[in-house]
Amino acid sequence: MTAHIARSARRQAGREILLAHGSGGRDMHNLVEGVILPLLTNPTLASLDDQAIVNIGGARLAFTTDSFVVDPLFFPGGDIGLLAVHGTINDLAMGGAKPLYLSLALILEEGFPMEALERVLRSVRAAADASGAQVVTGDTKVVHRGSADKLFINTAGIGVVTPGEHPTGGGARPGDRVLLSGTLGDHGMAILSCREGFEFGSPIASDTAGLWPLVAAMQAAAPGAVHALRDPTRGGLATTLNEIATRSGAGIRLREEAIPVRLPVQSACELLGLDPLYVANEGKLVAFVAPQAADAALAALRGHALGREASIIGTVVEDPQARVILETTVGGSRIVDMLSGDPLPRIC
Amino acid sequence: MTAHIARSARRQAGREILLAHGSGGRDMHNLVEGVILPLLTNPTLASLDDQAIVNIGGARLAFTTDSFVVDPLFFPGGDIGLLAVHGTINDLAMGGAKPLYLSLALILEEGFPMEALERVLRSVRAAADASGAQVVTGDTKVVHRGSADKLFINTAGIGVVTPGEHPTGGGARPGDRVLLSGTLGDHGMAILSCREGFEFGSPIASDTAGLWPLVAAMQAAAPGAVHALRDPTRGGLATTLNEIATRSGAGIRLREEAIPVRLPVQSACELLGLDPLYVANEGKLVAFVAPQAADAALAALRGHALGREASIIGTVVEDPQARVILETTVGGSRIVDMLSGDPLPRIC
Repeated sequence: MTAHIARSARRQAGREILLAHGSGGRDMHNLVEGVILPLLTNPTLASLDDQAIVNIGGARLAFTTDSFVVDPLFFPGGDIGLLAVHGTINDLAMGGAKPLYLSLALILEEGFPMEALERVLRSVRAAADASGAQVVTGDTKVVHRGSADKLFINTAGIGVVTPGEHPTGGGARPGDRVLLSGTLGDHGMAILSCREGFEFGSPIASDTAGLWPLVAAMQAAAPGAVHALRDPTRGGLATTLNEIATRSGAGIRLREEAIPVRLPVQSACELLGLDPLYVANEGKLVAFVAPQAADAALAALRGHALGREASIIGTVVEDPQARVILETTVGGSRIVDMLSGDPLPRIC
Repeated sequence: MTAHIARSARRQAGREILLAHGSGGRDMHNLVEGVILPLLTNPTLASLDDQAIVNIGGARLAFTTDSFVVDPLFFPGGDIGLLAVHGTINDLAMGGAKPLYLSLALILEEGFPMEALERVLRSVRAAADASGAQVVTGDTKVVHRGSADKLFINTAGIGVVTPGEHPTGGGARPGDRVLLSGTLGDHGMAILSCREGFEFGSPIASDTAGLWPLVAAMQAAAPGAVHALRDPTRGGLATTLNEIATRSGAGIRLREEAIPVRLPVQSACELLGLDPLYVANEGKLVAFVAPQAADAALAALRGHALGREASIIGTVVEDPQARVILETTVGGSRIVDMLSGDPLPRIC
């Protein structure tokens, strides 16, 4: 009991890491902005985009990193290997960059089956090949049984930003249209139903996918018109939109009826009391596009298999309070806040 | 018992990850070359250097990644934060590259003390600043209590290769002198004595350090003359030299008397039956230098605090069998092989 009380006390004082610190939501933001950034700060890191943009030898490069701790390792629609490559490819693509080179670092638990490792590596290779990127460097660590849960993967990546493109989380401007490339919540609900053994009629598959082709298509159709670009992973679309609104100093008005959600995902969310706006996606992007170019960008998205269900879900408005407001299907409206807590740990 | 027998059988068939697969020695090489490379292969990865060299926009960039799972997190002479930055900086430097940009990805165990995280981040900052590199992008994941051991860190890095320099593990040529920048075994024995509570008279401190200043000094003093460059970490100097010999298709003759080892490290190794040639270092480099430039390179190393005890420890010789042979202090000679097994897991 004493140890328990001491632990609770430390938690209350915010002096201990909680699961919610990895949620992608408000607690993680407090950790990153309150603890990590002040200690490491520099102008590039402080931009808080999912990738750093650095200038080397006349080229603008995007550089990003992500660790993957998803549980289970294999799930409907994908596995940790696909996720690790797609996640880093997407962080580069959201910087407007064509993914070129990836690193792959494995932390393996002693006793991990070699067959499973081979299966994961085949996924890594397939995902990299499909995106035109190469795994060029790596690292392997093994820890004792019980010191890690099966397999953790880190991928970092380098890409080249397309000249003339400058998407950034702070780039949304009043009037911009908000484009979403497809349905919400598939990845998070696939993991959850797989992990907990839930069945919701039709099976739910993860949407894990590399999004560079969608970005390339928008850049070609609407050059320079994509002001902000993000893949709504941990924390879901709601958290992503709040980040962009805050950093851009503008509000966002969303039309609920325009936001596509698959029926099994909707049913599962209702049953579990979850809101698809807060559930992780791993193959969707949200783009803030200048109004005159929005239709061209939308057509570019819809012209690709990954963007067939793309839609314009809202508009950026003047709002010094940078609120995200959802106009509901029943004609009301409500404020959409960032994720608090972590309903779905180890989703990626 | 049945589970135990099944596990043993899988192990014997080589179908399960063992601690030795993370050793840096022969088992890890078998994993990397037998399982990982065939599945991911491409020409850059197949070079098997500790960094990839890629061409982007007219610049030659080095790109590398390393995960750190060292136990304990804090040890005499350093901590996981210093180690994570130095490790990646050194992998870049060993490619002849000035370190520029780093990523930092944290995998935290629920309940990890915030004070410890802050202490690690201060080390990250200090090590990056001292090396002139910046942490520009990052990631944070949290797993349940018991699903990871406290804190794992991944750092990836980008550097620019100095024009005219092409060090590579396969670059050693007969006649090249083998330079070692200082004493062997300090890091491994520091971790071991800290972890096991051993005392060996004087305390043993890790040698963790960023080595780019040593490389820059050699490049300035002996431009183009450094043919191969490596930091002997996991697996120790013996494993590193065997890799270089094999990849270069040449033999190496070492003079034992020229290899510096601190007295407490020597004593500890003797007591525990370890050979300092196989113990990990985190602040030492070995350079293969053209004979006419070896004295200039040695002087450059010795001119820096990190290289004050540098010495020429051997010579590259013609040998199709690529053996590493040690001429012992008592006038004999013996073959020095790669590390087998893993005497010191989670050393970095």
